Amino acid sequence: MTEFEIGRAKRARQAYSFDDIAIVPSRRTRDPEEVSVAWQIDAYRFELPIIAAPMDSVMSPERAIAFGKLGGLGVLNLEGIWTRYEDPEPLLAEVAELDGLAATERLQEIYTAPIKAELITERLRQVREAGVTVAGSLSPQRTKEYAKAVVDAGVDMFVIRGTTVSAEHVSSQAEPLNLKEFIYELDVPVIVGGCATYTAALHLMRTGAAGVLVGFGGGAAHTTRTVLGIAVPMASAVADVAAARRDYLDESGGRYVHVIADGSIGRSGDIAKAIACGADAVMVGSPFARATDAPGHGFHWGAEAHHAELPRGARVQFDQIGTTEEILFGPSRVADGTMNLVGALKRSMATTGYTEVKEFQRVEVVTA
Amino acid sequence: MTEFEIGRAKRARQAYSFDDIAIVPSRRTRDPEEVSVAWQIDAYRFELPIIAAPMDSVMSPERAIAFGKLGGLGVLNLEGIWTRYEDPEPLLAEVAELDGLAATERLQEIYTAPIKAELITERLRQVREAGVTVAGSLSPQRTKEYAKAVVDAGVDMFVIRGTTVSAEHVSSQAEPLNLKEFIYELDVPVIVGGCATYTAALHLMRTGAAGVLVGFGGGAAHTTRTVLGIAVPMASAVADVAAARRDYLDESGGRYVHVIADGSIGRSGDIAKAIACGADAVMVGSPFARATDAPGHGFHWGAEAHHAELPRGARVQFDQIGTTEEILFGPSRVADGTMNLVGALKRSMATTGYTEVKEFQRVEVVTA
Amino acid sequence: MTEFEIGRAKRARQAYSFDDIAIVPSRRTRDPEEVSVAWQIDAYRFELPIIAAPMDSVMSPERAIAFGKLGGLGVLNLEGIWTRYEDPEPLLAEVAELDGLAATERLQEIYTAPIKAELITERLRQVREAGVTVAGSLSPQRTKEYAKAVVDAGVDMFVIRGTTVSAEHVSSQAEPLNLKEFIYELDVPVIVGGCATYTAALHLMRTGAAGVLVGFGGGAAHTTRTVLGIAVPMASAVADVAAARRDYLDESGGRYVHVIADGSIGRSGDIAKAIACGADAVMVGSPFARATDAPGHGFHWGAEAHHAELPRGARVQFDQIGTTEEILFGPSRVADGTMNLVGALKRSMATTGYTEVKEFQRVEVVTA
Amino acid sequence: MTEFEIGRAKRARQAYSFDDIAIVPSRRTRDPEEVSVAWQIDAYRFELPIIAAPMDSVMSPERAIAFGKLGGLGVLNLEGIWTRYEDPEPLLAEVAELDGLAATERLQEIYTAPIKAELITERLRQVREAGVTVAGSLSPQRTKEYAKAVVDAGVDMFVIRGTTVSAEHVSSQAEPLNLKEFIYELDVPVIVGGCATYTAALHLMRTGAAGVLVGFGGGAAHTTRTVLGIAVPMASAVADVAAARRDYLDESGGRYVHVIADGSIGRSGDIAKAIACGADAVMVGSPFARATDAPGHGFHWGAEAHHAELPRGARVQFDQIGTTEEILFGPSRVADGTMNLVGALKRSMATTGYTEVKEFQRVEVVTA
Repeated sequence: MTEFEIGRAKRARQAYSFDDIAIVPSRRTRDPEEVSVAWQIDAYRFELPIIAAPMDSVMSPERAIAFGKLGGLGVLNLEGIWTRYEDPEPLLAEVAELDGLAATERLQEIYTAPIKAELITERLRQVREAGVTVAGSLSPQRTKEYAKAVVDAGVDMFVIRGTTVSAEHVSSQAEPLNLKEFIYELDVPVIVGGCATYTAALHLMRTGAAGVLVGFGGGAAHTTRTVLGIAVPMASAVADVAAARRDYLDESGGRYVHVIADGSIGRSGDIAKAIACGADAVMVGSPFARATDAPGHGFHWGAEAHHAELPRGARVQFDQIGTTEEILFGPSRVADGTMNLVGALKRSMATTGYTEVKEFQRVEVVTA
Repeated sequence: MTEFEIGRAKRARQAYSFDDIAIVPSRRTRDPEEVSVAWQIDAYRFELPIIAAPMDSVMSPERAIAFGKLGGLGVLNLEGIWTRYEDPEPLLAEVAELDGLAATERLQEIYTAPIKAELITERLRQVREAGVTVAGSLSPQRTKEYAKAVVDAGVDMFVIRGTTVSAEHVSSQAEPLNLKEFIYELDVPVIVGGCATYTAALHLMRTGAAGVLVGFGGGAAHTTRTVLGIAVPMASAVADVAAARRDYLDESGGRYVHVIADGSIGRSGDIAKAIACGADAVMVGSPFARATDAPGHGFHWGAEAHHAELPRGARVQFDQIGTTEEILFGPSRVADGTMNLVGALKRSMATTGYTEVKEFQRVEVVTA
Repeated sequence: MTEFEIGRAKRARQAYSFDDIAIVPSRRTRDPEEVSVAWQIDAYRFELPIIAAPMDSVMSPERAIAFGKLGGLGVLNLEGIWTRYEDPEPLLAEVAELDGLAATERLQEIYTAPIKAELITERLRQVREAGVTVAGSLSPQRTKEYAKAVVDAGVDMFVIRGTTVSAEHVSSQAEPLNLKEFIYELDVPVIVGGCATYTAALHLMRTGAAGVLVGFGGGAAHTTRTVLGIAVPMASAVADVAAARRDYLDESGGRYVHVIADGSIGRSGDIAKAIACGADAVMVGSPFARATDAPGHGFHWGAEAHHAELPRGARVQFDQIGTTEEILFGPSRVADGTMNLVGALKRSMATTGYTEVKEFQRVEVVTA
Repeated sequence: MTEFEIGRAKRARQAYSFDDIAIVPSRRTRDPEEVSVAWQIDAYRFELPIIAAPMDSVMSPERAIAFGKLGGLGVLNLEGIWTRYEDPEPLLAEVAELDGLAATERLQEIYTAPIKAELITERLRQVREAGVTVAGSLSPQRTKEYAKAVVDAGVDMFVIRGTTVSAEHVSSQAEPLNLKEFIYELDVPVIVGGCATYTAALHLMRTGAAGVLVGFGGGAAHTTRTVLGIAVPMASAVADVAAARRDYLDESGGRYVHVIADGSIGRSGDIAKAIACGADAVMVGSPFARATDAPGHGFHWGAEAHHAELPRGARVQFDQIGTTEEILFGPSRVADGTMNLVGALKRSMATTGYTEVKEFQRVEVVTA
């Protein structure tokens, strides 16, 4: 990105969000029916390049199974409500009845309950027995404590996800997670993030991760920019991290680390734009919070929304517009990019002449 | 357009919409009365460089006749309501009474009725007998199936119009329309589009088309950007395609292919801007949907609004502000650019010192 | 201004409005009391660089006299209501009672009454007898017809004002006004405009004009951009015309033609910005339409708002916030830049270290 | 900053506000608990780089004491309500009951009461006896008159604060304050401003000031841009003045003048951005006007809001969201950046890998 002066003592680069860009057609068109959106990471192949985010309003063991059967990968939040409570359903129903402030307080309360290792085991077992790819997520802070439980329970894919995760967390109080060692010793592929820059991503790739998450992974209504001053315009972040993937591929002699856009993907057009900027796949939350079968009962929240000291987001309410299957495959009854995500992605690729996700990364974009 | 980095692995160009630009006066002024906005394509001369879009809410055989008599070209949608129903008027009246969601469902239903070749013949005959230039449109998907019926019925101009039409549609399932062959074998001039880039347009020009449509041709409220991530900022698209016209003129040894802006033209000022960017003529829908004599009864929709699997737009309602003739020639009673389109174009040209549409393509513009 | 590509066949410059820019302080400050905003054009010296626009809602003979006594120049519209009617006051009062559409229709009707040469004489006599500088305006279309009446009546300054006035109006129907000859033969200094570009302004300067108006001179709510596609971002236009002044000063061996910003000046800050871009003075309408003593009774309109064929603006209503004197000199009771215009200009100059209008043209600006 | 043309006769630089920029994470992360936000200026060390602005709605002797005990520096307005009235509390309570216009008028009235030197002495004594750092502010216009009273009363830090303060105020009527002499003769460190440019700041630094204020220091709802046309986009202003600090450090052989951002800091994220642009500390008003213990009773105003001749701002009302201590240190109950300012700053620094304010000035920013 072009650097310029903010003022004499400070330079900056211009960064772009998905809203700032648009895809333009090429000289060729194709049939949507001939487009493949299949995605393979490590030994696992998925019909869809869409990962359901490990958020309690979106993923439960049951939903992870259903999502896997639909061709995607559902990641279970292993330090959320499902590993703190035997039966969280009444809690989720209760929260759905509360209004704003009361809901936040109740959520803060709910998440003070301890994580139970045996529930981690139980939840993952349930997903594994359904025959779909098993994936669970922990925050970097808790990875050391619960990783063994997770691995013993048996996962196919391990996700370490925080608002900002670096390969070099410095702390003098507790010995921080050594990502490189951790991943090296683990038998299963690890997806780790979020990150937002070329350098941060390159260092994460060097830890041996199979994939990196680009973005904050915050809920749909996070206010990180207002509260912390930090923001990650996603189009630029994905394009930067895609360059890290390319350079690391060369540096490592051929290791292809997947770039997974995680944030600001609320509409089907955003999925196409994320890939156009270089993503291999996307991790999404809010689109599935609109599902009639979502655990959140029409509500959606990220972990940052009920932080005890410094909340940085809000619980949001969505119209429940259809089942997860309808949201993925249509038919759509709305024109706002919230239904038939896969159909929209295929049509976007076909209209611009592409049949494979990897090739579609080359599609031309404009800022507008 | 200047290319710059979105991020390290992705470059983009800045693109501009009509709203981003403005025309500036030159050192000369003229009388509006001395301005000619006449336009000639192939053997056909029109007093107005304005084509009424083949949309059921805007064009019927009757309206195409009226529009032709007013000096423009009205294109009939040959796969719309007029070629599916003997008498569509009751259906249009019915839909006008329905509210949003019900209307969409009813429209989806209405458009499942089969297209009848004999109605194509009948509708075109009606227009031809009125003595105006006869033009009908098909989508690329249906051109092979119905082209013979159209040609046999006798048209002066054939329009192939889709959201994105390329000279090279790749399909393994059905043999796609070979545009070049099709146009070569046809006796009548063909206008084809939409397209949005220099390269796509150049390839369309090489098929032998007499004119290319620039843009999506979607209805006034299409949501392609949100649903597919695709957008065509029109000022840049028209200026790119105008460059293709220039280069093809040289490459072909003198074939002048007309550039017709088709999209984002809602106000009289947009017509002037389209020409300022290099258009020879414009195709417009929504301004005529405001006519008291429009088939849509004050409503307007594009084919994308009732797509069965992936609707990408909404039916919109307009105030009916006057007859088509008043909308074209005034006198205007409103100050918002929706009436006296031709008077406004002439005044825009006169104020900036131009008397011919072709010369007005050179007028200075600024971004603002 | 930097040129760049809109698309391959069209280049444009980026233009800026007053809203796009801001003035920045320098390393020096001064006392507002020591600032002079005096302005001299030809033999006439004014305490204020502010001309009241020749609009019927703002200027009457009585208001022109009062404005002159306050230190500015009030220009009477010589083809407006005061030269069509012996006693326009009942009409102005009547219109003030009508709502939007009815008011427009009544205004259209009112302005069809013929201009009476004897009223031109009478109105100008009234102003002259009051001992202030006498200035009247005509449109270029009517200058030939009424100029003699104006000159015979005796004016100190003649204003030719239209939305866009060029030195080279081309017409085959009637012999157009030859500005150069007209000005050469006239004994009084002429101010002419609007214009918007370097070249157009340079040609106007070569006609011998004492001052040029930069901008459209439209009413506060004109819609020229929407209706005609034409717009004049004022900061760029003033800065371009100021360059023409500089170059013409050299070319003519010392003739200094005054640059008068006429448009988009609604707040006191805009006056400072106009001068910062290079204006010698400003012509303003809407700020005075807010006066309790304005002829418009709280309403404001430009001639373009009641055009019979193509209205390009609306009559707007303002709060009547104080007398003309209070609007010029305060004390202000509001914080929105509509009162104490002169105090604000002086404070702006003092804060940035300037004491003379001509020097203040050099103040630093930023875009923000 | 890059210069470009507004028009042929005027160049400008692009300037950026805090809203225009965002901080991006680096490749390292840290624990918020290990971040220090301590700040030292001259002999005074503070736990927080946050100065409470000398505004009557925010600071009283009591609040200055409390603020000092919380680790910051509270500056008392020495020409405000506390030095004009023995007991201003009833006045503050009265004003809080009045609505907009009446409040403005009453404030104008209240501030016409004379400043009493003995109250300056008394108020400062009260703060000093509480054992916190004592700081008071005067405007440049009144510094000569009251400086002796201030010094005699005993202050640790002297603040000269106006909307725009220059090292070279030119006046022929009264001998202006000679800042250089004044500061040289004074025994206590002086903080002076606002200023907005490299040159103005450099000259202020050369007067011997210990710190310079960057910005206008206006209230949260000032309208200087509208009224005067003057604006100081803060990100650029801070970055420019930080360059002056660096160059003056070299020029002076090692004098480090502190850069204090004063304006446009309404949310916790703005504090982080101000430091990211090069500030050593921030002076804030509106965030503390939200405190339940603020003198303003939920209202906030700057001196410019009740200017007698040219008011340039409005009194604004805020929700009272918690005590000053909660606003500084949380826990936050809102997600909009108005609570837990210090916690947010620490988290912002930790997330991007920094532990010291001075180092955090190097964090990467983007415009977005």
